[in-house]
Amino acid sequence: MDIQHIRELFPILNQEINGEPLIYFDNAATSQTPISVVDAMVAYYQTDNANIHRGVHALAERATQAYEGTRQKVAQWLNAQHTEEIIFNRGTTEGLNFLAQGLVEPQLNEGDLILTTKLEHHSNLVPWQEVCQRTGASLEFLPLSADWTVDLPSLDKYDDSSIKALVIHHVSNVLGVEQSLQALSNWAHERGALLIVDGAQAVPHLPVDVQQLGVDAYCFSGHKMYGPTGIGAVYLKASHHETTQPVQFGGEMIHYVGDLASDYKQAPWKFEAGTMPISQVVGLGAAIDFIADIGYATIGDHESKLVAKLCQGLDHLDGVTRLNQNVQAPHGLVSFNIDGVHPHDAATAYDLEGIAVRAGHHCAQPLMRVLDTPATLRASVGMYNTLEEVERFIEVTEKVRDFFKYGLESTR
Amino acid sequence: MDIQHIRELFPILNQEINGEPLIYFDNAATSQTPISVVDAMVAYYQTDNANIHRGVHALAERATQAYEGTRQKVAQWLNAQHTEEIIFNRGTTEGLNFLAQGLVEPQLNEGDLILTTKLEHHSNLVPWQEVCQRTGASLEFLPLSADWTVDLPSLDKYDDSSIKALVIHHVSNVLGVEQSLQALSNWAHERGALLIVDGAQAVPHLPVDVQQLGVDAYCFSGHKMYGPTGIGAVYLKASHHETTQPVQFGGEMIHYVGDLASDYKQAPWKFEAGTMPISQVVGLGAAIDFIADIGYATIGDHESKLVAKLCQGLDHLDGVTRLNQNVQAPHGLVSFNIDGVHPHDAATAYDLEGIAVRAGHHCAQPLMRVLDTPATLRASVGMYNTLEEVERFIEVTEKVRDFFKYGLESTR
Repeated sequence: MDIQHIRELFPILNQEINGEPLIYFDNAATSQTPISVVDAMVAYYQTDNANIHRGVHALAERATQAYEGTRQKVAQWLNAQHTEEIIFNRGTTEGLNFLAQGLVEPQLNEGDLILTTKLEHHSNLVPWQEVCQRTGASLEFLPLSADWTVDLPSLDKYDDSSIKALVIHHVSNVLGVEQSLQALSNWAHERGALLIVDGAQAVPHLPVDVQQLGVDAYCFSGHKMYGPTGIGAVYLKASHHETTQPVQFGGEMIHYVGDLASDYKQAPWKFEAGTMPISQVVGLGAAIDFIADIGYATIGDHESKLVAKLCQGLDHLDGVTRLNQNVQAPHGLVSFNIDGVHPHDAATAYDLEGIAVRAGHHCAQPLMRVLDTPATLRASVGMYNTLEEVERFIEVTEKVRDFFKYGLESTR
Repeated sequence: MDIQHIRELFPILNQEINGEPLIYFDNAATSQTPISVVDAMVAYYQTDNANIHRGVHALAERATQAYEGTRQKVAQWLNAQHTEEIIFNRGTTEGLNFLAQGLVEPQLNEGDLILTTKLEHHSNLVPWQEVCQRTGASLEFLPLSADWTVDLPSLDKYDDSSIKALVIHHVSNVLGVEQSLQALSNWAHERGALLIVDGAQAVPHLPVDVQQLGVDAYCFSGHKMYGPTGIGAVYLKASHHETTQPVQFGGEMIHYVGDLASDYKQAPWKFEAGTMPISQVVGLGAAIDFIADIGYATIGDHESKLVAKLCQGLDHLDGVTRLNQNVQAPHGLVSFNIDGVHPHDAATAYDLEGIAVRAGHHCAQPLMRVLDTPATLRASVGMYNTLEEVERFIEVTEKVRDFFKYGLESTR
């Protein structure tokens, strides 16, 4: 992997912040966008831009081909059985809300159970809270093992017939742990429950085969996998297309519109109301090509070296507590705290050294309560980060720790 | 207005289709995107790209300023009283669904009335059909005058107390007629009803002052006003913020997330779940700047000349029926049919001459039934179209008419 060549494809990395070279370690919030993705969108606007599906003229046909061609590309990338199993949207949050309201809610009765974990991003928790409140169903949290994966043997305590859905992350945005979806899928399907997956933190790092994993639905966002903002997709297994209700209406998702009632097209189009983010779909296709060119094996190998070095470096620092100690091979990130320093203060200090890290609850307040901390620092890497950046990050962490330590001591 | 200079800002226009210079007359479906809008998004990806609101590092602060700065720009552009009255989303369809489900549905009871017209785009009809079906409210269609505006004097027949909302287009996407929002607003507010407006076809052509018009909510899309795809906004009057419920959940729209229930931030953030289309917001801001630089007076003056010439040219052709005959000063478009020629066949023939027009029901099937036609042709202009293009369009219309006429005669 020629890391210098890859970095040249991301012009944003070549800048100084506060007089220091930028080290972008906030990839779990949003990844940077390579030239090829930006160029694909610019070319779209400069040659093909038109509304899709509705026009017979040349631009409209080209735009439609670009849009539907990307649907096919996403389907192949996830190994979906049918192209029509891919539904475009704004991102993972919209996808999970759609599945909660469109797929699960119509099947949900009082007393039914939805199972999840305390590691979920709010986007994979609050939609289910809302659906449970409206229907009288209950939300329960699966027991976790010491390594933060779901403790499968302990799941026998649930009344099987009431379980309607298991909703879970693929990779945690705070701990980087990967859940064993295949085992969870078997367990859920034996009980007639759906397995619905938040894949936002997985697709930048590892290949996803929705058929092999056995998921019923899988959501992800473009902007976390080197694609543009404003685009994401849901894989929804074809066998659920009939029972799933659209949650937005209008535009080309309809078949016949009467004055007082209407009926809808087939999936996926019935789930895509209004003019879709067409240029962003084109950008998403370019991001998939970009990842495919480099290859998940190469990306995973490089990133696991970065994360291993991050873990090792932080573990050698007194006064620094890493929160994913027990996670085997965390994907792409470490969360940690510096004793006595608020994560937001620390993040500000990192910024003064040119380093972008995230501080906060990472949209995972229930997990913060489990971890017994209001917030953490999180350093998350992408394919363009280097071992030298990790070394400097560890040096700066030591500096930040000492700065606040002496600062605190001097004010006593 | 230096039309040649403006055309140079839209590189897409400089191409041939089937050996003829492109004439893009499909602006009501989507407008083209000037270099400045594309450049603003490219610059965002190459210098500032980060997730917003959540980070203290430099890129996150710059991205947040760009995003929130555009909210302020949109508010000023629409003359909203408060910046917080602007809510970003994917486009007009999402905006109208949000208002139907989040603003109106919680207030709606069995027997209540929602008033609309038969001119609405499906995106401003089907969401209301759905809400009425769920709540037992009724949808009724306002009587229209010969000029296709709402016939205000005849509105006295309604039982005032049951009217909850009047939902209407500002400018029709099929007839180009502009409704008198100010009068409708007075009428609605005297009865305690909301005025909710689909402004998708208005903002490319005329200035909108939400306070002067007295609307409660106003929706539009970026991609119809020289901005990018994947972005739109709702103006929602501050007095409705408390009663309006979010319809998507997760990410940074929350304030506190308990295990089983959560509460939300203030508007507009409680209505913006998940990572928003950040770069597209930046592009929307550039589109507003672009329109402001040229000025609505200039744009409106130029476009009304184009439309007047279109109307005049079509009216001089035997065998061509213009459908907005009675509309005074239609905005930006004409709909018409060629006797005995299906609009789709005609559109294909136009395409062979390099001309992009739209054929179909234009997402307005109820209006097609009123017009007693399954479909129409629609030619819609933007600021970059020329009088020469209109002349050629009229010539080609004659050619298309004759081609199908002789074609039909020869097969008899």
